[in-house]
Amino acid sequence: MQLDQLFSALSDTTRRAVLARLCKGPAAVSELAQDFDMALPSFTQHLRVLEDSGLVMSEKNGRVRTYQLAPQALKEAELWLSRQRSDWESRFNQLDEYLNKMKENRDV
Amino acid sequence: MQLDQLFSALSDTTRRAVLARLCKGPAAVSELAQDFDMALPSFTQHLRVLEDSGLVMSEKNGRVRTYQLAPQALKEAELWLSRQRSDWESRFNQLDEYLNKMKENRDV
Repeated sequence: MQLDQLFSALSDTTRRAVLARLCKGPAAVSELAQDFDMALPSFTQHLRVLEDSGLVMSEKNGRVRTYQLAPQALKEAELWLSRQRSDWESRFNQLDEYLNKMKENRDV
Repeated sequence: MQLDQLFSALSDTTRRAVLARLCKGPAAVSELAQDFDMALPSFTQHLRVLEDSGLVMSEKNGRVRTYQLAPQALKEAELWLSRQRSDWESRFNQLDEYLNKMKENRDV
Protein backbone atom coordinates (compact mmCIF):
# COMPACT_ATOMS: atom_id res chain seq x y z
CA MET A 1 0.00 0.00 0.00
CA GLN A 2 1.25 3.47 -0.86
CA LEU A 3 1.04 4.91 2.68
CA ASP A 4 3.23 2.03 3.95
CA GLN A 5 5.98 3.07 1.54
CA LEU A 6 5.47 6.75 2.25
CA PHE A 7 5.81 6.50 6.04
CA SER A 8 8.62 3.97 5.72
CA ALA A 9 10.55 6.40 3.49
CA LEU A 10 10.00 9.11 6.13
CA SER A 11 11.36 6.90 8.95
CA ASP A 12 15.03 7.70 8.29
CA THR A 13 16.91 10.83 9.41
CA THR A 14 18.95 11.11 6.19
CA ARG A 15 15.90 10.78 3.98
CA ARG A 16 13.98 13.38 6.00
CA ALA A 17 16.95 15.76 5.70
CA VAL A 18 17.03 15.25 1.90
CA LEU A 19 13.29 15.96 1.73
CA ALA A 20 13.68 19.08 3.87
CA ARG A 21 16.42 20.24 1.46
CA LEU A 22 14.27 19.55 -1.63
CA CYS A 23 11.38 21.52 -0.10
CA LYS A 24 13.61 24.56 -0.64
CA GLY A 25 14.11 23.73 -4.33
CA PRO A 26 15.49 21.07 -6.75
CA ALA A 27 19.11 19.89 -6.44
CA ALA A 28 21.60 17.65 -8.25
CA VAL A 29 22.80 14.43 -6.58
CA SER A 30 26.29 15.85 -5.96
CA GLU A 31 24.81 18.95 -4.29
CA LEU A 32 22.57 16.80 -2.07
CA ALA A 33 25.33 14.33 -1.21
CA GLN A 34 27.79 16.98 0.02
CA ASP A 35 25.66 17.62 3.14
CA PHE A 36 26.04 13.99 4.27
CA ASP A 37 29.07 12.12 5.52
CA MET A 38 28.13 8.91 3.69
CA ALA A 39 29.45 6.73 0.85
CA LEU A 40 27.75 7.67 -2.43
CA PRO A 41 26.21 4.19 -3.04
CA SER A 42 24.48 4.31 0.37
CA PHE A 43 23.32 7.83 -0.32
CA THR A 44 21.88 7.03 -3.76
CA GLN A 45 20.10 4.05 -2.18
CA HIS A 46 18.29 6.55 0.10
CA LEU A 47 17.38 8.62 -2.97
CA ARG A 48 16.00 5.48 -4.62
CA VAL A 49 13.78 4.73 -1.59
CA LEU A 50 12.49 8.30 -1.67
CA GLU A 51 11.77 8.08 -5.40
CA ASP A 52 10.06 4.65 -5.10
CA SER A 53 7.80 6.05 -2.37
CA GLY A 54 6.66 8.85 -4.67
CA LEU A 55 8.05 11.61 -2.41
CA VAL A 56 10.60 12.83 -4.97
CA MET A 57 11.10 12.75 -8.74
CA SER A 58 14.34 12.89 -10.72
CA GLU A 59 15.43 13.64 -14.25
CA LYS A 60 18.75 13.21 -15.96
CA ASN A 61 20.36 15.86 -18.18
CA GLY A 62 23.63 14.57 -19.64
CA ARG A 63 25.54 13.19 -16.65
CA VAL A 64 23.65 15.17 -14.03
CA ARG A 65 20.62 13.73 -12.25
CA THR A 66 18.46 16.36 -10.55
CA TYR A 67 15.91 15.64 -7.83
CA GLN A 68 12.82 17.59 -6.92
CA LEU A 69 10.02 17.21 -4.42
CA ALA A 70 6.78 15.54 -5.50
CA PRO A 71 4.61 17.56 -3.09
CA GLN A 72 1.45 15.47 -3.54
CA ALA A 73 2.90 12.49 -1.63
CA LEU A 74 3.98 14.68 1.30
CA LYS A 75 0.47 16.11 1.29
CA GLU A 76 -1.08 12.62 1.43
CA ALA A 77 0.91 11.62 4.50
CA GLU A 78 -0.06 14.91 6.17
CA LEU A 79 -3.70 14.39 5.20
CA TRP A 80 -3.82 10.95 6.81
CA LEU A 81 -2.43 12.36 10.06
CA SER A 82 -4.72 15.38 10.12
CA ARG A 83 -7.78 13.16 9.50
CA GLN A 84 -6.92 11.10 12.58
CA ARG A 85 -6.38 14.24 14.61
CA SER A 86 -9.74 15.61 13.58
CA ASP A 87 -11.44 12.37 14.74
CA TRP A 88 -9.57 12.68 18.00
CA GLU A 89 -10.53 16.33 18.44
CA SER A 90 -14.19 15.80 17.65
CA ARG A 91 -14.26 13.02 20.24
CA PHE A 92 -12.80 15.45 22.76
CA ASN A 93 -15.36 18.11 21.86
CA GLN A 94 -18.13 15.58 22.40
CA LEU A 95 -16.72 14.69 25.82
CA ASP A 96 -16.46 18.39 26.61
CA GLU A 97 -20.09 19.03 25.63
CA TYR A 98 -21.16 16.05 27.68
CA LEU A 99 -19.29 17.30 30.76
CA ASN A 100 -20.70 20.81 30.33
CA LYS A 101 -24.22 19.39 30.13
CA MET A 102 -23.60 17.33 33.28
CA LYS A 103 -22.39 20.52 34.99
CA GLU A 104 -25.41 22.54 33.83
CA ASN A 105 -27.80 19.87 35.09
CA ARG A 106 -26.03 19.85 38.42
CA ASP A 107 -26.16 23.67 38.68
CA VAL A 108 -29.92 23.85 37.94
CA MET B 1 15.73 9.38 16.89
CA GLN B 2 12.10 9.67 17.91
CA LEU B 3 10.76 10.67 14.46
CA ASP B 4 12.40 7.53 12.98
CA GLN B 5 10.38 5.35 15.34
CA LEU B 6 7.23 7.42 14.84
CA PHE B 7 7.18 7.20 11.05
CA SER B 8 8.30 3.58 11.13
CA ALA B 9 5.34 2.74 13.41
CA LEU B 10 3.04 4.51 10.94
CA SER B 11 4.37 2.51 7.97
CA ASP B 12 2.11 -0.50 8.54
CA THR B 13 -1.56 -0.83 7.53
CA THR B 14 -2.58 -2.73 10.68
CA ARG B 15 -0.90 -0.22 12.98
CA ARG B 16 -2.50 2.72 11.16
CA ALA B 17 -5.91 1.03 11.48
CA VAL B 18 -5.37 0.56 15.24
CA LEU B 19 -4.41 4.23 15.58
CA ALA B 20 -7.46 5.31 13.58
CA ARG B 21 -9.59 3.21 15.95
CA LEU B 22 -7.96 4.69 19.06
CA CYS B 23 -8.56 8.22 17.74
CA LYS B 24 -12.24 7.47 18.35
CA GLY B 25 -11.58 6.46 22.00
CA PRO B 26 -9.70 3.97 24.23
CA ALA B 27 -10.18 0.23 23.72
CA ALA B 28 -9.18 -3.07 25.33
CA VAL B 29 -6.82 -5.43 23.47
CA SER B 30 -9.62 -7.96 22.81
CA GLU B 31 -11.83 -5.22 21.34
CA LEU B 32 -9.00 -3.99 19.10
CA ALA B 33 -7.99 -7.49 18.02
CA GLN B 34 -11.47 -8.53 16.86
CA ASP B 35 -11.23 -6.18 13.83
CA PHE B 36 -8.16 -8.00 12.52
CA ASP B 37 -7.79 -11.47 11.09
CA MET B 38 -4.45 -12.07 12.78
CA ALA B 39 -2.95 -14.34 15.45
CA LEU B 40 -2.96 -12.57 18.85
CA PRO B 41 0.86 -12.70 19.32
CA SER B 42 1.39 -10.91 15.97
CA PHE B 43 -1.28 -8.39 16.87
CA THR B 44 0.15 -7.62 20.31
CA GLN B 45 3.56 -7.18 18.65
CA HIS B 46 2.01 -4.37 16.56
CA LEU B 47 0.63 -2.84 19.77
CA ARG B 48 4.10 -3.02 21.29
CA VAL B 49 5.62 -1.17 18.31
CA LEU B 50 2.95 1.53 18.62
CA GLU B 51 3.59 1.91 22.34
CA ASP B 52 7.40 2.00 21.92
CA SER B 53 7.02 4.77 19.33
CA GLY B 54 5.04 6.88 21.80
CA LEU B 55 1.89 6.92 19.66
CA VAL B 56 -0.21 4.99 22.19
CA MET B 57 -0.25 4.30 25.94
CA SER B 58 -1.70 1.34 27.79
CA GLU B 59 -2.74 0.46 31.32
CA LYS B 60 -3.72 -2.80 32.90
CA ASN B 61 -6.73 -3.24 35.19
CA GLY B 62 -6.93 -6.79 36.47
CA ARG B 63 -6.60 -8.96 33.35
CA VAL B 64 -7.66 -6.27 30.90
CA ARG B 65 -5.11 -4.07 29.16
CA THR B 66 -6.62 -0.91 27.66
CA TYR B 67 -4.94 1.22 25.00
CA GLN B 68 -5.41 4.89 24.30
CA LEU B 69 -3.95 7.39 21.86
CA ALA B 70 -1.01 9.57 22.97
CA PRO B 71 -2.00 12.51 20.74
CA GLN B 72 1.25 14.47 21.17
CA ALA B 73 3.27 11.98 19.08
CA LEU B 74 0.74 12.08 16.23
CA LYS B 75 0.94 15.86 16.41
CA GLU B 76 4.75 15.79 16.17
CA ALA B 77 4.70 13.72 12.97
CA GLU B 78 2.10 16.08 11.51
CA LEU B 79 4.15 19.10 12.57
CA TRP B 80 7.26 17.83 10.79
CA LEU B 81 5.29 17.34 7.57
CA SER B 82 3.52 20.69 7.75
CA ARG B 83 6.85 22.48 8.35
CA GLN B 84 8.25 20.99 5.15
CA ARG B 85 5.12 21.96 3.25
CA SER B 86 5.36 25.51 4.48
CA ASP B 87 8.98 25.73 3.19
CA TRP B 88 7.78 24.34 -0.13
CA GLU B 89 4.89 26.79 -0.34
CA SER B 90 6.97 29.83 0.55
CA ARG B 91 9.41 28.83 -2.19
CA PHE B 92 6.50 28.68 -4.63
CA ASN B 93 5.24 32.09 -3.51
CA GLN B 94 8.72 33.53 -4.09
CA LEU B 95 8.80 32.05 -7.60
CA ASP B 96 5.34 33.46 -8.22
CA GLU B 97 6.37 36.95 -7.10
CA TYR B 98 9.46 36.74 -9.26
CA LEU B 99 7.43 35.74 -12.33
CA ASN B 100 4.90 38.52 -11.68
CA LYS B 101 7.72 41.05 -11.44
CA MET B 102 9.20 39.75 -14.72
CA LYS B 103 5.77 40.14 -16.30
CA GLU B 104 5.32 43.71 -14.95
CA ASN B 105 8.74 44.73 -16.27
CA ARG B 106 7.87 43.28 -19.65
CA ASP B 107 4.51 45.08 -19.73
CA VAL B 108 6.02 48.53 -18.88
